Amino acid sequence: MNKTVLLTGFEPFNKETINPAWEAVRSLAGHEGVGYRVEVRQLPCVFGAAGEVLRAAIDELRPGVVIAVGQAGGRVDLSVERIAINIDDAPIPDNAQCQLIDQPVVEGGPAAYFSTLPIKAIVSALREGGLPASVSQTAGTFVCNHVFYSLMHQTAGTDVRAGFIHIPYLPQQAAAHPDAPSMALAEVVRGLIIALEVALAAGLDVCEAGGAVA
Amino acid sequence: MNKTVLLTGFEPFNKETINPAWEAVRSLAGHEGVGYRVEVRQLPCVFGAAGEVLRAAIDELRPGVVIAVGQAGGRVDLSVERIAINIDDAPIPDNAQCQLIDQPVVEGGPAAYFSTLPIKAIVSALREGGLPASVSQTAGTFVCNHVFYSLMHQTAGTDVRAGFIHIPYLPQQAAAHPDAPSMALAEVVRGLIIALEVALAAGLDVCEAGGAVA
Amino acid sequence: MNKTVLLTGFEPFNKETINPAWEAVRSLAGHEGVGYRVEVRQLPCVFGAAGEVLRAAIDELRPGVVIAVGQAGGRVDLSVERIAINIDDAPIPDNAQCQLIDQPVVEGGPAAYFSTLPIKAIVSALREGGLPASVSQTAGTFVCNHVFYSLMHQTAGTDVRAGFIHIPYLPQQAAAHPDAPSMALAEVVRGLIIALEVALAAGLDVCEAGGAVA
Amino acid sequence: MNKTVLLTGFEPFNKETINPAWEAVRSLAGHEGVGYRVEVRQLPCVFGAAGEVLRAAIDELRPGVVIAVGQAGGRVDLSVERIAINIDDAPIPDNAQCQLIDQPVVEGGPAAYFSTLPIKAIVSALREGGLPASVSQTAGTFVCNHVFYSLMHQTAGTDVRAGFIHIPYLPQQAAAHPDAPSMALAEVVRGLIIALEVALAAGLDVCEAGGAVA
Repeated sequence: MNKTVLLTGFEPFNKETINPAWEAVRSLAGHEGVGYRVEVRQLPCVFGAAGEVLRAAIDELRPGVVIAVGQAGGRVDLSVERIAINIDDAPIPDNAQCQLIDQPVVEGGPAAYFSTLPIKAIVSALREGGLPASVSQTAGTFVCNHVFYSLMHQTAGTDVRAGFIHIPYLPQQAAAHPDAPSMALAEVVRGLIIALEVALAAGLDVCEAGGAVA
Repeated sequence: MNKTVLLTGFEPFNKETINPAWEAVRSLAGHEGVGYRVEVRQLPCVFGAAGEVLRAAIDELRPGVVIAVGQAGGRVDLSVERIAINIDDAPIPDNAQCQLIDQPVVEGGPAAYFSTLPIKAIVSALREGGLPASVSQTAGTFVCNHVFYSLMHQTAGTDVRAGFIHIPYLPQQAAAHPDAPSMALAEVVRGLIIALEVALAAGLDVCEAGGAVA
Repeated sequence: MNKTVLLTGFEPFNKETINPAWEAVRSLAGHEGVGYRVEVRQLPCVFGAAGEVLRAAIDELRPGVVIAVGQAGGRVDLSVERIAINIDDAPIPDNAQCQLIDQPVVEGGPAAYFSTLPIKAIVSALREGGLPASVSQTAGTFVCNHVFYSLMHQTAGTDVRAGFIHIPYLPQQAAAHPDAPSMALAEVVRGLIIALEVALAAGLDVCEAGGAVA
Repeated sequence: MNKTVLLTGFEPFNKETINPAWEAVRSLAGHEGVGYRVEVRQLPCVFGAAGEVLRAAIDELRPGVVIAVGQAGGRVDLSVERIAINIDDAPIPDNAQCQLIDQPVVEGGPAAYFSTLPIKAIVSALREGGLPASVSQTAGTFVCNHVFYSLMHQTAGTDVRAGFIHIPYLPQQAAAHPDAPSMALAEVVRGLIIALEVALAAGLDVCEAGGAVA
């Protein structure tokens, strides 16, 4: 297994000036742990283009693990997504002012892909690490799900471990959104390290059954 | 104005092993800022006894500012309480296994007291500091409100600035409470420093009208 | 005890075209039960004026029970309010385009009044009647609380049973507010009848201790 | 198109004594509208068995439209589900005390199926009818999703319009669940009639593109 881990985060969208996903991901650029190294990429919050930037990064880096990270304003915890669905149905325009309604991400693609990350093991490890976390059954239908589906389509049939994690607002964002929960940047970063290390360990385990839903 | 600031936090309750209020407060024991010093006390989560420990601390320290801090599991932000009400109505037993129902905190006391902290100014300063915060209209009817009411009753008619701030779970607590929001300890501590410094500044402002609701 | 029951509801506000409180209340105009009769009044959603209309109605009708009813968009159940506080702090302008900030409802009035309705008995009866209900610790700081405080100030020292109940959106309102809970009009009306009959029964009970918080 | 509409609802589960889905569905047994007739079936809240009862009903009745209905305690509105996923991951045991974890609904089946109901048109019609409604991106991973996936697997490749609608608690259930939203039975029943009539109309529209996601 290639020991390069690719983390992606989006540029800001929906009137925000920062994106917590990118803030967390970029702080891990070049991070090295035992036997692995992290590469990061920023993705545009744009249907189509986001998937192309991701594909180019995967082609270039040949990572063993890919975790796309996105902001989910209103969520309380680190949400490890279970499934990407073949639909673009945007509640707001993307950053190119395109608002796709009920279009497939990939024409003729399967209805959905399951994450190939060990999602339950990641959630357990996050909680053991003192971080609130859960498995999420929906990544929505905006650019986050679009990238997640693109990622799973691109890595289908390979041994790359890939998936998506949604994170809450940062405290400074929540300060402007009454009633919105938040999570400190340091906690998110710590959570991403836990997640990618669990994913790497799973990737190394040759005895693992390899089921997509494990 | 006396430049001693008294912060209080509770012992753990309701099956928790830590209380984020006490964790935050105790980390500020002996903290000194420009012209002030912080003293801290842990309060028992017990009707009656909590108010007595508080009274003893006020008698001993003669603080210019008192901020009681309590855990509000389920809340998303730093909640600066506006009003304490003369009622004990416990949803669960306190730590002495006493569950008061619809009893007055102080027999014959007024129905309520407004905080004498500059609550709007504190919320503004917290938000400017990048922390989610809001004015709350209820401190509940458990030991938190009991202590808040006791505090306001004890300091009524004095120039002590006093009030109550509710804080969310810590992340490690939220890890065991699905769907519960949280706030990192470092953020809470930073918020308490902002709050007490705004309160001190308000206490020094001799031109201020002195209204309870400012 | 006078067997006239006064119910009030507000005119629509905040861009709504109907107010569920008024829809429910007006459907009970002239309703007669065993030994009582209901009179209703619509209140303007205007600071000051709302209290004056209420006062005139009380002077005219001399009711034994008064229940003011208001819309609380976002709440899930019939919320029987415990306490009215002496503050006007409007998140939005009222219907006369006045947005009071941190003003007392009654200059020099007490900080708060407890409801003189048997709030716990009402909640129990509502639940037994198959309706979701709870005691609420805050009626907010907008015109609802303003009227509630005015009502309690006007009836203080009398044997009138008075208080406030907040109700959810109607389904047709929630249809335009994503994620907003609602309650059908028929259920609200049924709940109001339960509430006023419990209040009447309590008012008749000469052995009752008469505590404001019962 | 066959003008028989099959509605299913579950037996009670998770300590409830009624299931709002079955209460609503059974009240429509034999209901006839212009050109259609409703048949209803109760499904056991049991993995496997629920799908078998459903299959037998479809084989027997040859319905043109099938809408499975389920209780979603905590949701606020009529949630028209978009997608069924190939996973059983039970948060609680089913009524046969079986708690499947991360098992496929159909071994070797596709990861997901989109509803073949006109979900957007149904939501629009419900809202126009004064009922709160939304498209939901997840039917969970319990028996509801299990039946939904089974239904879509059984009807794949046919011209049957099929899907799933989640409904809130009834008021009498919410009376026992603090903070839980609810919807009156009459409103749910009215909503189901709207939904099935929109589905029937869509099924008759030969010009319709036939896309699963319409």
